[in-house]
Amino acid sequence: MARELRIALDVMGGDHGPATVIAGAEMARARTPHIRYILFGREAEMSPCLDAYPKLRAAARLVPVEQVVLATDKPSQALRRSRDSSMGQAIQAVKNGEADVAVSAGNTGALMAMARFILRTMSGIDRPALVSLLPTARGESVMLDLGANVDSTADNLVQFAVMGAVFARTVLGLERPRVGLLNIGAEELKGTEEIKAAGQILRETTLPMEFAGFTEGDRIGAGDMDVVVCDGFIGNVALKTAEGTARLIAELLSRAFRSSPWSKLGYLLARPALASLKDHLDPNHHNGAVLLGLNGLVVKSHGSANAVGIATAINTASDLASDHILARIADDMAQYPANVQAAAASAAVSEA
Amino acid sequence: MARELRIALDVMGGDHGPATVIAGAEMARARTPHIRYILFGREAEMSPCLDAYPKLRAAARLVPVEQVVLATDKPSQALRRSRDSSMGQAIQAVKNGEADVAVSAGNTGALMAMARFILRTMSGIDRPALVSLLPTARGESVMLDLGANVDSTADNLVQFAVMGAVFARTVLGLERPRVGLLNIGAEELKGTEEIKAAGQILRETTLPMEFAGFTEGDRIGAGDMDVVVCDGFIGNVALKTAEGTARLIAELLSRAFRSSPWSKLGYLLARPALASLKDHLDPNHHNGAVLLGLNGLVVKSHGSANAVGIATAINTASDLASDHILARIADDMAQYPANVQAAAASAAVSEA
Repeated sequence: MARELRIALDVMGGDHGPATVIAGAEMARARTPHIRYILFGREAEMSPCLDAYPKLRAAARLVPVEQVVLATDKPSQALRRSRDSSMGQAIQAVKNGEADVAVSAGNTGALMAMARFILRTMSGIDRPALVSLLPTARGESVMLDLGANVDSTADNLVQFAVMGAVFARTVLGLERPRVGLLNIGAEELKGTEEIKAAGQILRETTLPMEFAGFTEGDRIGAGDMDVVVCDGFIGNVALKTAEGTARLIAELLSRAFRSSPWSKLGYLLARPALASLKDHLDPNHHNGAVLLGLNGLVVKSHGSANAVGIATAINTASDLASDHILARIADDMAQYPANVQAAAASAAVSEA
Repeated sequence: MARELRIALDVMGGDHGPATVIAGAEMARARTPHIRYILFGREAEMSPCLDAYPKLRAAARLVPVEQVVLATDKPSQALRRSRDSSMGQAIQAVKNGEADVAVSAGNTGALMAMARFILRTMSGIDRPALVSLLPTARGESVMLDLGANVDSTADNLVQFAVMGAVFARTVLGLERPRVGLLNIGAEELKGTEEIKAAGQILRETTLPMEFAGFTEGDRIGAGDMDVVVCDGFIGNVALKTAEGTARLIAELLSRAFRSSPWSKLGYLLARPALASLKDHLDPNHHNGAVLLGLNGLVVKSHGSANAVGIATAINTASDLASDHILARIADDMAQYPANVQAAAASAAVSEA
C-alpha cells in the first residue's frame, strides 16, 4: 500500500473561492485515497463546503486561519503582512515537516516570494524555477522557467535544465528526456551570451538527459523537446502568448461555426470530436505549475482553475511528492558541479 | 495619379524559387500598376518565368546577378562574400536611390546584416527593428522587435515604440495608436530594469500615441494594443510560439475532423466558414516584416511564402514607401530627444 501523503492546501486561494478548492480536493481524494489533507482557511467558509464530502472531512485536518492573501497584494506586502495567511501557513507546514507539499491557487507573485523566503533554495540551486507541462502535438512537454525570475545567468539555465530533466523523468517516465534551450535560432552562434554559455556547459553533461541544443518557439507546440529551458521572462511571455493564441483561435472558430446554418449543423456533427481536442488543450487538464529548487515542494494552480483543475494540481503535487523529486534533483546536482567546472574550464581554454 | 514607385526585388530568395517570387510580383503589379520593378537574379532562371507575364516584363528592368545567398549561409559569411548577390544588390539599389524599397524572401539573418551594413541606422535610432502585423481578435496589431536584436536598452525600446506608432498610423490608419510594452505583468513594478525605465520615459510622451503601459503575452491575440513593443529575443520567441500554437491547433483540429464519419461530414458543412478563419490566420495574408530604422526601406517576406504571400509583402513595401514612413519616423524622432531627456532627468530625480 502506498505511503500516506500529506498535502497542505490553501483553501482561500483561487478566483472561484473555497467551494471550488474543496470540490477539487474531493475529486483528488477519490483518485488517491491515501492522501491526508491539512486545510488552511477561514473556518466559517471551509466548514460548510465540507458537509457534502464526509470522506474528505475524515481525511482532513482543518487549521482555521483568518488572514488571506488577495489577488491584488504585491509580493512585498504579502511577505511583510501575510506570513500568517492561509497561503503562508500552508508553506510553513512544508517547512515544519507537517506536510509533503503545499498547493495554492492564490496570488502567484506572493506565493513565490513567500515560498522562497520560508523554504530557501536547495544546495546547488541558486534560484527556483516555475515548471509546468504543456500540451503538444506529441503529448506533453516540460517547460521552465515560467516566471519565477526575470533574468537568468548561464548557471541558472543549466540548473533549470537539470531540474527539468528530473521532472520529465519523474512525471513523464522518460529515461533520457530530450532537453533544448529556447533560442531565436537553432545554430550554435545564435542568441544571448548566457544561452550560448549554458549550451556549452550542457553539451558536456553526463547526466541522464539528451541535450539536443537550441530550439525555437514554433517547435514547442510540435513537441520536439521533452524539456524546454529558458529564462523566466521569456518562458512567461511564451506561455501566455500560446494561451492567448489558443484563445484567439477558439474565438475565431466559434465565430466561424456560428456564421451560417450549415456551419452550425457542421459543428453539431463534429462536436464530440471537437470536445476531445478541447480537452487536450484545456488548461485544467495540465494544471499545476511547480516551484522547483526550494527545500520543499510548492504547487501553484491557475487562479481560474475549476474543481477539475484543482484536482489536477493536487494529483501533480502528490505524484511529485511520492516520487521524491527533490531528493532526485539533489542527487543529480551532487553529480553536477564537477561537470560544470570542467566544462567552464574547457570553455575558458577554447576562448583563450 | 500615384507617383511611380520603384521596388528592388530579390528574385532568388524564398523556398519556392524564382517562379513563385515572379508570380507574386505579377499579382502585386495587377493591384498597383504604378510600381516599377528592378529584378535581381540569375537571368537563365528569371527570364523564362517572365514569359507568362508580358505586363510585368514591361514594368521591370532585369539585373543579371549570378551570386545567391543560401538559406544556410551565416550572416557573417553573407557580409563577407555576398554583397554582389541578388539580395545584396537589391539593398544596394535602395542605398543608391535607384529603388524606394527592397523586398526579399531570402535568409533573414543575412538580409538584416547586409541591410544594416549597407544602409546604416537613421539619425536618432540606435538599432533597427523588425516589425510586422499580427492577426488578432480585433483585426491586426503591430509588433516589434521580432528579432533584429537579441537584447535592448530602455532607449532602444523607446525608439521601437516611436517607430511602431508611426507604422500603426501609416499602415493601420490610426490617429493615436495604443502602445504597450510587453512584460510579465501589468503592474508598474514588474519586469526588467530596461522595461521599467522605458515605461517611465514613454509615460511622458507627447507624440501622437496613447502609451497604455505594460501588456502581457496572452493579450497580444486579443488585440488590446495596436502596437506591442519588446526586445528582439522576446518578440522572436513570442511570434514563433504563436505560429507553433496555431499549427498545433490546426493539426489537432484536422485529427478531430478526420476521427469519425460524422465529424468528416461536419467539416464539409462548416468548410466555407472555416476557410475564412484560415484566411484570417494565414501567414501569407500578413506577410512582410519590415526592417525599420535604417536609411532605406527593406521588407522581408517569409521564406515559405507562396505567390499570394510575396504579393502581400510587395504591397506592404509599396504602401510604406508611398507613405514615406521613414520621413515620418525622422519627424517624430526629431521631436523626441528633448522629451526623452526630460523624462530621464525626472526619473533620476525621483530615484534620488
